[in-house]
Amino acid sequence: MTDRPAVLIMQRHLAPLTPFLESQWTVYRFWEGPPVEAQADIRALVVAGEFELDKALIERLPNLKLIACFTSGYDRIDVAWCRARGLPVSHAPGVNHEDVADHAIGLILAARRQIAAGDRALRAGNWTPDSKMITPSLNGQRVGIVGLGAIGEAVARRAEALRMPVTWWGPRDKDAAWPRAASLIKLARDSDILVVACKADDGNIGLISRAVIEALGPQGLLVNVARGQLIDEDGLIAALKDGRLGQAALDVFEDEPTDVAKWRGVPNTVLTPHTGGATTEAVQGMLGLLMENLQAAFTGNALKTPVPD
Amino acid sequence: MTDRPAVLIMQRHLAPLTPFLESQWTVYRFWEGPPVEAQADIRALVVAGEFELDKALIERLPNLKLIACFTSGYDRIDVAWCRARGLPVSHAPGVNHEDVADHAIGLILAARRQIAAGDRALRAGNWTPDSKMITPSLNGQRVGIVGLGAIGEAVARRAEALRMPVTWWGPRDKDAAWPRAASLIKLARDSDILVVACKADDGNIGLISRAVIEALGPQGLLVNVARGQLIDEDGLIAALKDGRLGQAALDVFEDEPTDVAKWRGVPNTVLTPHTGGATTEAVQGMLGLLMENLQAAFTGNALKTPVPD
Repeated sequence: MTDRPAVLIMQRHLAPLTPFLESQWTVYRFWEGPPVEAQADIRALVVAGEFELDKALIERLPNLKLIACFTSGYDRIDVAWCRARGLPVSHAPGVNHEDVADHAIGLILAARRQIAAGDRALRAGNWTPDSKMITPSLNGQRVGIVGLGAIGEAVARRAEALRMPVTWWGPRDKDAAWPRAASLIKLARDSDILVVACKADDGNIGLISRAVIEALGPQGLLVNVARGQLIDEDGLIAALKDGRLGQAALDVFEDEPTDVAKWRGVPNTVLTPHTGGATTEAVQGMLGLLMENLQAAFTGNALKTPVPD
Repeated sequence: MTDRPAVLIMQRHLAPLTPFLESQWTVYRFWEGPPVEAQADIRALVVAGEFELDKALIERLPNLKLIACFTSGYDRIDVAWCRARGLPVSHAPGVNHEDVADHAIGLILAARRQIAAGDRALRAGNWTPDSKMITPSLNGQRVGIVGLGAIGEAVARRAEALRMPVTWWGPRDKDAAWPRAASLIKLARDSDILVVACKADDGNIGLISRAVIEALGPQGLLVNVARGQLIDEDGLIAALKDGRLGQAALDVFEDEPTDVAKWRGVPNTVLTPHTGGATTEAVQGMLGLLMENLQAAFTGNALKTPVPD
């Protein structure tokens, strides 16, 4: 064990954090196979919250002081298991919800106003003198928001500016500027566009079930900027293929990166590679919180942004 | 000459109007070569305002009572020439400006947040475990609006809801909720995103010149939802190719349909086939105005929506 604390980055897409972390600590990267001698030096894991913890690995790290989620979401992190081992977990809340809401609006416009499909059609030479692509107006389209947290509220404000009335549903009622539907299935039935914006946890896997998808219906658009496992993805694909659902615009998937093959031949989709919250500005904010939490953990101070109890 | 008035549809993409017009009048379609005997029956031309009138044809139609623009814009219609012949011109104002503004916002999001490019990258299999697409936040990006008419104001309201401050420029000052730049070139220099939303006429062809494009600069995004001839299109393509302009998102082009070949190898573009104002709802509204104007012209009544003096 050396004096300089070391951190272990777990996911490859977090590799760009390396130079920032190296300015203060030794950095190991899991996919490069850190040496066994490093195990005693590693004081923190740097992870993305949509990936499961490698618990067997954690049990081999005797001096671990922190599970540092780079992300706001920590849905795949078994926080109770960590706490039982005296291992705190930090994350990066309140940094990117407005950007995620922007992305949700961008997905709605890309899907409904055929911006992605129109761009493809034009480039493929399918704009001809006798063709005219007509798209539905957003005006009056009813937006249903699943989960009225920071992202959901930011989506609701934007939807109103685009002339779309908002209703929401979440398991718990709360004070809100928009009416709450009596149930998720009723929200889906009474919406033209359903935006999934809730936190994911063990209790809501597959929340957007085949029944919810069918309630949204053949004219409906399903948007997901939350987590892939909230949607029954096989059910979604089947419903798109046989027209029981109109459109889907997805930034998140059951597995990430998603297997492209499963989306081939699935009509009426807009698919983005989990870019909703990954803006330059948000990533800078998340990096700042990550550094502060690591410093606090290594100096025995209170974490800046621990996950809530 | 028969008793039943006839109308002549000039552009092929207006063909879907046929059944509606046939419910009241005889319909000829220019591209099908109407018979010479029809010339005396034709009382109105149905046109899209972004196409030039066939003046030689008009002079062969002795009983013409109306040039009926299906569109709001009538920039390629020589209204003075028509008036000199006692031929009124109608159009469809106030119907689709909010939809065009929605489309402008969709283009901004598709370009800045890489929704079109992300969708393409994902489908091409370029989302891998070690890739992460980072995009700029819209937060604080300065939107400059060229022309603060109905479309421009609708874009401005939406931009504010997306946390983007608004400035505008137009040749004439007016009461507005947003500050007016001293000049177009200054607007371009002080904007991250320039949205072209003004009317086109003979006096502003190429308004968005190479100098304006360079003032917007290597990080700038140029959005056009107005008319293609407002932009120096060759200059735009050159600036995109050598990085003097960051991005362009275009719904309109110098020639429509635009020649796909000229856009091959031009980076950082989102291109849609003039769909901004062509929503189901707007088309219904435009059709309603078209029918009313035709009825008025054929019965000698005042036009519902003549082009302004």
